[in-house]
Amino acid sequence: MKVSILFSGGKDSCLAAVLLSKFFEVELVTCSFGILSNWKKAEEVAKKLGFSFNELKTSSFKVLKLDKKILEEAAEKIIQDSFPANGIKYIHQKALETLAEQTELIADGIRRDDRVPVLSLAEVKHLEDKFNIHYIQPLMGYSRKTINILVDKFFKIKEYKSTDFVGAEYEFELREYIKKKYGAGKIKEIFPQNHTQSIVVDIKEKIC
Amino acid sequence: MKVSILFSGGKDSCLAAVLLSKFFEVELVTCSFGILSNWKKAEEVAKKLGFSFNELKTSSFKVLKLDKKILEEAAEKIIQDSFPANGIKYIHQKALETLAEQTELIADGIRRDDRVPVLSLAEVKHLEDKFNIHYIQPLMGYSRKTINILVDKFFKIKEYKSTDFVGAEYEFELREYIKKKYGAGKIKEIFPQNHTQSIVVDIKEKIC
Repeated sequence: MKVSILFSGGKDSCLAAVLLSKFFEVELVTCSFGILSNWKKAEEVAKKLGFSFNELKTSSFKVLKLDKKILEEAAEKIIQDSFPANGIKYIHQKALETLAEQTELIADGIRRDDRVPVLSLAEVKHLEDKFNIHYIQPLMGYSRKTINILVDKFFKIKEYKSTDFVGAEYEFELREYIKKKYGAGKIKEIFPQNHTQSIVVDIKEKIC
Repeated sequence: MKVSILFSGGKDSCLAAVLLSKFFEVELVTCSFGILSNWKKAEEVAKKLGFSFNELKTSSFKVLKLDKKILEEAAEKIIQDSFPANGIKYIHQKALETLAEQTELIADGIRRDDRVPVLSLAEVKHLEDKFNIHYIQPLMGYSRKTINILVDKFFKIKEYKSTDFVGAEYEFELREYIKKKYGAGKIKEIFPQNHTQSIVVDIKEKIC
């Protein structure tokens, strides 16, 4: 059985992918609107994971092209709201739906204590029913505190301010698009300046 | 790192234990009020799991003695309510608390779509804070439909009517206690007659 997981190369999606590899062949899927090549950051991490974990039978990695309309609509939402949460959730929902059209088992790295981009249980069930798929959230039963211990045990990570680094999360193409369409001032106005992203830079311990 | 998981030998707690074995040494813990020896049913399954999964480094199994007062209070609740849900949840909460007094990482086999004995997120966080522990619910991000596919792939299970079989779940000592104290009629009145329990009887496929 193959599961396709939305993958940014951050600590949560890495941990979720490794956990899924207990039961499934895992395909790592990074989204792109074709605006930046930031998906390459995720591909580098995917290679590291595939190399180190024998059990991850497919170290397969793919880029999922998302319709640019989704980005435009998310940006409009964000401009209206003056904060990014709903727009980012919108992209995540559309990414899950796009993936659900292609494969039967989909997953992501959402944790129990996450607030963005978390779908409600009703939305999760609706997604499963509408597309007749399985949507797995392998970290949903883990607190942030527990995840931190596991990440620290298995991965070497690097944390960056979102302003100093371009990762493979949705946020970066979104920022780029908003900057071009609405000006750089809007970015400072809307996105928190101290937000950090993590990326896995190495594997400390083989997990099998 | 060792995690102690509440374990009945049913399909959910087996699957949860195997999943946890990806990251932790797993201790299987079955509760007993000392009224029946039904914990032996769980021990048999524990042996099967430990035998087949190399990765389950500790096939360790233990019986957790619970204070009989907990059973008495749960039974009183159930008699008052005329349905078992709140009483069973009460036992589960007390079992988690008893375990939390002994070890730092605790877990159970609760799924996303379970209704009993599910703690609310506030109760989960309270438990973690009060005892300064990690409470992991490894199946919380999996639907019943997904669990069924995994169970079918890895385990041979047998389903029994609760009236025809005595498993290692809390329910069976509870029934016994209520029968003795309030009479057999109460059992028919309170517990659903068509409720089924599952027990894992064999392992289909080695998971590693």
